[in-house]
This record gives sequence, structure tokens and C-alpha cells, in this order.
Amino acid sequence: MAILVLESYLRANRERIVRSLLHWLQIPSISADPERSEDLWASARFCAEMLGAAGLEHVAVLESPIGPAVYADWLHAGPKAPTVLIYGHHDVQPVDPLDEWISLPFQPVIMDGECRARGAIDDKGQVLYQIEACRGLLSVLGKLPVNVKFLVEGEEEVGSPYLEDLLLRETDRLRCDVVVVSDTGMVSPDIPSVTVSMRGLVAFDVSLRTASVDLHSGVWGGAVPNAAAVASRVVAALHDRDGRVAVPGFYDDVRELTSLERALIAAQPFDESAFKTQAGGIRSLVGEVGFSPLERIGARPTAEVVGIHSGYGGPGIKTIVPASAGLKVAFRLVPDQQPDRIEALFRSWLTQQTPEVLECQVTRQGAVAPVSTPIDHPAVEAVVRAVERVWGSRPLFTREGGSGPEETLARILRAPLAFLGVGLPDDRIHAPNERMVMDQFFKGLLAAGELLIELGNLVGRAGERP
Amino acid sequence: MAILVLESYLRANRERIVRSLLHWLQIPSISADPERSEDLWASARFCAEMLGAAGLEHVAVLESPIGPAVYADWLHAGPKAPTVLIYGHHDVQPVDPLDEWISLPFQPVIMDGECRARGAIDDKGQVLYQIEACRGLLSVLGKLPVNVKFLVEGEEEVGSPYLEDLLLRETDRLRCDVVVVSDTGMVSPDIPSVTVSMRGLVAFDVSLRTASVDLHSGVWGGAVPNAAAVASRVVAALHDRDGRVAVPGFYDDVRELTSLERALIAAQPFDESAFKTQAGGIRSLVGEVGFSPLERIGARPTAEVVGIHSGYGGPGIKTIVPASAGLKVAFRLVPDQQPDRIEALFRSWLTQQTPEVLECQVTRQGAVAPVSTPIDHPAVEAVVRAVERVWGSRPLFTREGGSGPEETLARILRAPLAFLGVGLPDDRIHAPNERMVMDQFFKGLLAAGELLIELGNLVGRAGERP
Repeated sequence: MAILVLESYLRANRERIVRSLLHWLQIPSISADPERSEDLWASARFCAEMLGAAGLEHVAVLESPIGPAVYADWLHAGPKAPTVLIYGHHDVQPVDPLDEWISLPFQPVIMDGECRARGAIDDKGQVLYQIEACRGLLSVLGKLPVNVKFLVEGEEEVGSPYLEDLLLRETDRLRCDVVVVSDTGMVSPDIPSVTVSMRGLVAFDVSLRTASVDLHSGVWGGAVPNAAAVASRVVAALHDRDGRVAVPGFYDDVRELTSLERALIAAQPFDESAFKTQAGGIRSLVGEVGFSPLERIGARPTAEVVGIHSGYGGPGIKTIVPASAGLKVAFRLVPDQQPDRIEALFRSWLTQQTPEVLECQVTRQGAVAPVSTPIDHPAVEAVVRAVERVWGSRPLFTREGGSGPEETLARILRAPLAFLGVGLPDDRIHAPNERMVMDQFFKGLLAAGELLIELGNLVGRAGERP
Repeated sequence: MAILVLESYLRANRERIVRSLLHWLQIPSISADPERSEDLWASARFCAEMLGAAGLEHVAVLESPIGPAVYADWLHAGPKAPTVLIYGHHDVQPVDPLDEWISLPFQPVIMDGECRARGAIDDKGQVLYQIEACRGLLSVLGKLPVNVKFLVEGEEEVGSPYLEDLLLRETDRLRCDVVVVSDTGMVSPDIPSVTVSMRGLVAFDVSLRTASVDLHSGVWGGAVPNAAAVASRVVAALHDRDGRVAVPGFYDDVRELTSLERALIAAQPFDESAFKTQAGGIRSLVGEVGFSPLERIGARPTAEVVGIHSGYGGPGIKTIVPASAGLKVAFRLVPDQQPDRIEALFRSWLTQQTPEVLECQVTRQGAVAPVSTPIDHPAVEAVVRAVERVWGSRPLFTREGGSGPEETLARILRAPLAFLGVGLPDDRIHAPNERMVMDQFFKGLLAAGELLIELGNLVGRAGERP
């Protein structure tokens, strides 16, 4: 039903909606650039205006140290209706290297059915179709099927460092029954898909020392520990022969995939040759024995060495035995692994691996717990129905390998996550010539409306909130 | 006999000899510093003057691109007498860090029986006692027991890059029956020792790449090769569990130590605790199973990682899978290993170790073959008798772990090497506050004279040249 309503709304408002999109994309709201503070405010204010024009209330720009967030709500769906918090962000990535852009990143161009600009798909376009879906329903029907709150963040591209503070400060205002994240993608325009999990992360900086100074390899080599070799052996020991993480206990809390979940992942198309090309032309795939590449990057925990540095790195050779080494390791986590427990396991394993070291300092560099929503959760089922209705085929489930602010949202707001996203693998997010496919944008608008109606139906059907 | 002659010579000339030493040590002949070219010439000229004053002939300063060498000879010992080439160098190491010197490096100080200055023991002092031994014998006896040639190099501290050219250019002038190298040390003043071998060296710079760009670990991590991990696994695989170099064929050409040689090494005193302290306070000794620490550092070949660098090394963490890595490996070689063969073995092993890499560039960074003289060689026996007579006890044999120009000398001049050196482990060569123990210097002078006489005796005894 929402489709019919919103399709006619779209016919009548298409020009205005596209103008709003282009206007917003002209604001260079780069959160990584301290000089862009004014632009982040301008972007937030424009977002607030659009929310107000859509009929949402209590519109507020919420100050935050780097870039402000925008809040708005519509809370007239009745006491039994669930409250849906729609999350997105209005800040964008830096634009370097500028000379690789075909057109300027903040002079958006619509051509061949694509809108090319920084922030087009990540994430202004995906916020805008949510706002316009509400506006359409409100303008045609005079009401929304659920209570809606918007939280449009301004610091996502720098890792949402103050989001937790904001959520704790505004917990009452942001209380909700489900968080709809509008910042993900799908497999292809022909193969719609729905994200159901995001891996967590815990990373460490390790610095170790085997002697007080580098030693002369001619004098001492052969009888003294070599810090570069010690660090390398730690890295080599991090995985076993089967590509599994060798830290004892690492997999203890991994919730194994059900056979249904594995079947659903296996149903996704996978072109190994295209995958290897996209991954920088790699020669062969690697990873955990017994799991497919898509499982390895989305559904299985990993350990990756981010960097190793020890000894001489300049031209030529120096005859030293290095005395110190630095190592950075990042673990990607899946439910129900917890960063604290992984840290304890890693520290104890590392100590056992390095009997030769004099000093070993381990510093934790950030941690995000993994998030997932069961595929049979009513909110996920609502997304599935909305997407199926708009794209015309039942969506697949996908698992994203990265980690954003979603875990913070789910944890502090104590609400399940549902992901509605229309990005495509070729959208070049974080890269030159970022784009959004306009057909995906308009379908997103329709699906966003469908999703609100589906979430509204849940009350009647299940007798309780999602 | 030489001892008596030279002891009386020393009593009469001690003041003048020390003045010469101090004068020479004031010349900052740092070969690594392009600004010191004038000083290298001044040092060479002063050396030439001393050789001339000693009664040597054909004194010549031989131009070379960095620092000139000095030649002189005395060839009147008769047609049956062997010709001995005495090798040393007059260039010195840089002096950084200057603020750690107790007195200025080129203002030599003699105090508490030690001479402190850059170059005191490495190697001006050791050249000077050879010159003065000849001067003493010539002034008292009017002749030398053998034909003597001096070659005092000016580029040793920068790796003798032009020594081979010089030797090839001057092969006729430098022809000899034995090379006496005067640039080594002994175990302690109470435990005299004689060097009989020096390890060789072949080093490589390895740069490898697994993808065209660093990849996002959230998106790709778990399924793509990690260059830091590949490089680390190469390093970890370089040694087996027994500390042996795991490159197949690496030990094929190693001339195993005889049981006599092992017994002689075992006879050297070894204080593990002092060794660990001197080696930068290391926690434990490592190395090849089945060999003692002294065998490991002197008599066994080794592989050392000089450096490993890959991925992010700055503050915090970056969520990348590194695409490239750099690695530097130095092999120390023993007789009869040859750098070319080790290079071939290493390259082939490396290829097998890295099936994931797209590109792997291996660049050789210098090579020196190992040198050794059998302990029962007449020239070594001559050194042993000379040292025993002066120090009062039979010397031990030592094997030096480093690699200097000795191999070039032995190879091009086709002559055996004999080492007479009075340096001590605490002499701080290449470091601030380099020193020479004056008693060792004077004993060196006596031993140098004894050695010439011993070498002269060889003709009569063995009926042929050493």
C-alpha cells in the first residue's frame, strides 16, 4: 500500500527531492577536516530543515565536539505503536586524491541514472530517502504507522568518538523499540539483500624489546634473541595451518552459524575472479579452512596483522640484531565474542609466545563488540518483506565485515537493529567518484515507507512491539 | 731473542713512540665523512713518514677514491726468506654520539695505563706497533729476518669498497707469502688468543607485494593474503625448532669443526652472565642446538633478520590488510660456504615460501666469503709461539663473527692469513671512549718482532715458505 501512495508522491515531488539531494551534497561536511566545522553545521541545519519540512517535530541540532547531530520525531502513532529510531549520518569522507575525480566532489552531477558526489550514497542519499518516505506518508495519509525518531550523526566517518556520550546524554529522548540503520548496501540491483550482522573489533599495539640496544650481528649474531624474529614468530603463530586463529579460547564464544544461515550465505552469488580483482589483484584467496570466502569476510572472526616494524628499513643493509619491535594486531569479532575476553586471551597467549623478551607492552587500541539480529527476528522479517515488495524478489542475508557505531546504538538504546540499505559494491564509498544509483535511491524511498508500515503491522500481528 | 732486542729498544724509545701515537690519533681520519678527505691524506702522510723513519723503503701513498692507502717495504732478507705483508688501516669510525665521550675523541688522553681516543686500538695503535717492531729490529740488528711489505688501508671502516681494485692494480708490488693482519683482539690480557677465522656475509633486501593496495580489513580481512603476515612467516620459517637455518642446502658446504677445534673453543673461558649483560641485558641465550654460544657466534653460520617493515606503524590503529612488506636478511657464513651458492638457495627457498605474493624482489646487499687458516698452518703456529713468548701462556684460538677485508686480501694475493691482534673486548671499538691498553700495545710490539723472527725461521725448518 505504501508503494502506491509513495509512487504517486514521487511522481509529484521527484524534481524537488532531487534538488534537495543536490543542495545537501554541495555542502562539504568532511568530519575528518577541522576546517570544515562550519560546513558540518550547515549540513546539520539543512538536514534539520528537511526534517521540519517533512512534518517531523522537536527538530534539534545537537552539538558534539566534531560535527553536530540532528534529531527529530513524530510521536502520534498511538500508545500501542512501536517507536522506530532511524539512524544515518550527514558527515562525509575526505576527497583525496582530488585529481582522480571526474567531476568535483561537491559539485554533484546526475548522469546515466547515477548521482556522483562525495556523500551521495554514504550517507546523505540514504538519510534523504528515509526523510522523504516520512514526508510522503505524512503528506498523503496525514500520519505515520509508527512513532519515528531520526538521529542523523555528524561524526561517523571519524569513528563516532562522541556518539556514546550523546546517546547517554539523550537516552530518554532517543528511547525506541527498534533502530533502523540506513547506511548499508546490497549485493546488486538484481539481487537485493539485507544486512543482519556486523563484526566487532578489538585491536592491540604491541611493543617488545629483547635487549637494551641493537647488537652487532657479526659479534653477537647466532646466540642472542632477535626482536624482529620474535615479533615475526608471534605473527606466524597467530594462525594455525588451517587458517584458524591459534590463540587458545578464541573461538569459545563464537555462536556457530546455523545450517539455514550457512545455506543463505551460500545462496549469494560469488565471482572469485571479480573478488580477486577488486581486492587489489590478489593471486589467491586465503583463510579459515571449512568456510567460504563470504563466510570468512562476514561471518567468521579473524586476526589481521595491521603492521610490523623492527630493525633497519633504510637503503642497503646494516649488520645489526634488532633489539625492539612493534606490532599491531586487529581482531574482527562475531557474536558472542567480547573484546574484554579476547584481550585477556591474547595477552596470556602473547606472554607464552615470547619467553625471550625483556619488556612487552600491550596497548588496546579501541574495541567494538559484534552485533547481529537473528534472521527470524520480527524487525528483520519486516525489512525482508519491504525489500521483497519493492525489488520484486526475496532478499538474501548478508553479514558485513566492518564495524561502525551500530553496536553503540544497540547497546545503549537496548534495541534490536534492522538494516535497510541500498548501496552497491561499485558505489566507491570512501574513494574518488562516489556515486548513488538513482533507481536504488527511489526504491529505497519506497522500501523505507513499506518498512514503517510493516513495523506498524507487527503490533497487531504479534501483540507486542518488535 | 727479539724480545730482548726490542725490550731495550722500547726502554730507549718509549717517549718518542708514545708521541707518535698521540700525534697520529689527533688526525680525525674518519672515512665515512666526505669532509675528512684532507685528514685522511694527512693521516696517510704521517703513516708514510713513520714507515720511512723506521727504515722501510719505496714508501708510497696510494690514491683511492675515499681515503689513500700507504705502502712501504724492506726486501733485503735474501732470496730464500719469505715475504710478509702486514695489513692494517689508518682510517677510523665516526665519533657520534659525541656527548658520551669523557674526553674529546681526537684529543688523546693516556691515563691509568690506557690511551683513550678514536682509532687508538682500531687500528692506528695496532699498525704503529708493527712499524715500531720493524724500526726496532732494523735499528738494533740492521736487518729484518724476512722481507716485509706494509699495506695500511684508508677505507676499512666504510667496508673497503676499493680494496679489491687496489689489490688488482698493485698485485705485483704486494705479492707475498703470508698476510699478517693486525686488526683483531684477544680474550683478555691474561688469556691471550689468536684469531684463526672470520665469518663471511651475504645479505639480502626482500620486498614483496600481495595486492596492489592496502585493503580494508573490515571488508576483506579473513579471505585475502596479508603481506605483513607473509613476511613474518618467511622470518619465522628461516630457522627450525633447533635453531638451525631452514634453507635447504644451507649447511652443505660447511666444513665441520674437528674435535680438536671444538676442544680449543671449549677451552676458552665463557661467563654466561657477563655475556648476557654485555649483549644489552638479554634474558636468555638462543641459537643452534648442539653448539656452545662461542661456537654459535664464531664458528657456525647464521641467518639474522636485520629488519622487517610492513603496514601501519604510526600511533593508534588502522583497519588495513597490508599489501606490501620489506625484509632484510643477513647470513653469516663459515668455510666453505660461498655467497653465490647461498644466494641461489635462499632465492629458491623464498619463492617456495611465498606462493601468495604477486611480486617479490630480492636484491643482494654485499657479500664476503668466510676466511680461515688451519690451526696447524706454519704461519698460525708462528703467531702462537710469538704470543706465548710475550704473554707467557699458550694462546687459545678464537673465531671472529664479523667480516672485514681479509677475504679480499687472501683471495687476490693468494696468501694465507695470520692474525696478530691485541685488542680487548672492553676496548669500545666503534663506540664512544675507544681505548687501547698500553701494556697490550707494548706487548704487541714485542710479539710483532717475535713473529717476524718466527716466520723467518720457517724457511730453514720446513725447507719452504709458509
